[in-house]
Amino acid sequence: MYLMRIGARSAEKPVARIDDETYVDLSDVVTDFDEAFFGSGGLDRVRPVVTERAQAGQVSRFAGERVGAPIARPHQILCIGLNYRDHAAESGMPVPDEPILFTKSPNTLVGPHDDVRIPRGSTKTDWEVELGIVIGRRTSYLDSVEEARDAIAGYVVVNDVSERSFQLERGGQWAKGKSAETFNPAGPWLATTDEIDDVLALDMWLDVNGVRRQTGSTKTMVFDPYFIVHYLSQFLVLEPGDLINTGTPPGVGMGLTPPVYLQPGDVMELGIKHLGTQRQHVLGPR
Amino acid sequence: MYLMRIGARSAEKPVARIDDETYVDLSDVVTDFDEAFFGSGGLDRVRPVVTERAQAGQVSRFAGERVGAPIARPHQILCIGLNYRDHAAESGMPVPDEPILFTKSPNTLVGPHDDVRIPRGSTKTDWEVELGIVIGRRTSYLDSVEEARDAIAGYVVVNDVSERSFQLERGGQWAKGKSAETFNPAGPWLATTDEIDDVLALDMWLDVNGVRRQTGSTKTMVFDPYFIVHYLSQFLVLEPGDLINTGTPPGVGMGLTPPVYLQPGDVMELGIKHLGTQRQHVLGPR
Repeated sequence: MYLMRIGARSAEKPVARIDDETYVDLSDVVTDFDEAFFGSGGLDRVRPVVTERAQAGQVSRFAGERVGAPIARPHQILCIGLNYRDHAAESGMPVPDEPILFTKSPNTLVGPHDDVRIPRGSTKTDWEVELGIVIGRRTSYLDSVEEARDAIAGYVVVNDVSERSFQLERGGQWAKGKSAETFNPAGPWLATTDEIDDVLALDMWLDVNGVRRQTGSTKTMVFDPYFIVHYLSQFLVLEPGDLINTGTPPGVGMGLTPPVYLQPGDVMELGIKHLGTQRQHVLGPR
Repeated sequence: MYLMRIGARSAEKPVARIDDETYVDLSDVVTDFDEAFFGSGGLDRVRPVVTERAQAGQVSRFAGERVGAPIARPHQILCIGLNYRDHAAESGMPVPDEPILFTKSPNTLVGPHDDVRIPRGSTKTDWEVELGIVIGRRTSYLDSVEEARDAIAGYVVVNDVSERSFQLERGGQWAKGKSAETFNPAGPWLATTDEIDDVLALDMWLDVNGVRRQTGSTKTMVFDPYFIVHYLSQFLVLEPGDLINTGTPPGVGMGLTPPVYLQPGDVMELGIKHLGTQRQHVLGPR
């Protein structure tokens, strides 16, 4: 299943994408793709509905609606740092021995094609294409990495937008440069785990103004999604619908010589195989 | 006003405390003290109700109900590190030039007398009495420190429980040692700002097993609550009901010679003048 939320901000309608042209409307059976949905077996509940309606031809045609993030604002957005060997190298940091955890404010979540706004006082706003994990059930102290498979609802594209001076030059913890409004475009869809044959073989890319900046694949991750979910579950309780950004491959603006950062008017385009593409215009500060 | 939530976990009833013995029940006019409540002028709405009912003698007597955190699970829990000069010294770290921001998972929030559980694999679980700020309205890019006064709904006692090895020895960002379940007791009540004459003159203390460990006052804070709210609003959007832990005074276990950490069976008691007291039993890992 490919879940989407379409429509005006804060009034998105939950649907299941059938193909580029059509979807099954789920707004009569689901309030939202939120903590309550994932935590109450919502995926299993809507799956037969989607199949039945698709077979019966009860589908609607996309009509240029805004696409929202495919999940509601989560309880938390967790992020893994320096999780691609080449990205650690370009950042001048060692490959970590165990996952580096930092967080973003949940209200950074926006749709995949919404504008990204440079914060006031920013000089170093940067891009990061990433694989996002959506948690499917309350998860704590998993006994094995294998068990993490059942804790994952699915995967999304995220752009982990980052302000490098706020992150690295303003007092020691990364959260400060990760949480400005609009800093976490997600979507266009949530692909449930059964749709992804091999999560460790997903190509990803990011362009700025048509110039290819990031090219990577989940096959070069330091810690894979199952390891990450098992690991995090030893330190905190993951709630259904929580989002985990799993780190970015090489090619961020900070790693270029000289560094290149986002400017008002720039356009970011990014995608991950099977998970769709995003396109964001960059706006100046409010 | 002094707001409380009493009753079983996840079924707390919103009330206004009149004194140690009595309260006004608000469950017929308020769903919960949550983001929607604070964001929709809830404080102004219930204030005349509390006054009227108290004057009319429409009060109930506390009958040993469990006390929950005085606010619902917030959108985010933000924390300021090393915000008391003496605590920075005992931690062997310099007084920061600007506030250090880190976060806790929102689901760490528990009631003021709920058990605190040592996480699996922990050797260094530690205590931190702190003043907590509850945000009263959506807040972004405040123009002045003075303006922050209107953004604050009130204040609470929090125990910012911390696992020092997870925080400092497991990969570089503090969130990892701050987010275990039960790690953020809050309450017993939220004192609205009008009840606190001078937020910069609040004595605070914490005992472990009857031994005084922390003694402090908000008068020795490096960055005061108004500065903190103004500062954070430049980096992220604060939502109504968000909680900000403002840092701890000297006397944490890590700062003792030799260090002392929590053990199963320990009892923490802590409080801040005008904001009430907490008492937690410490449990071993699940």
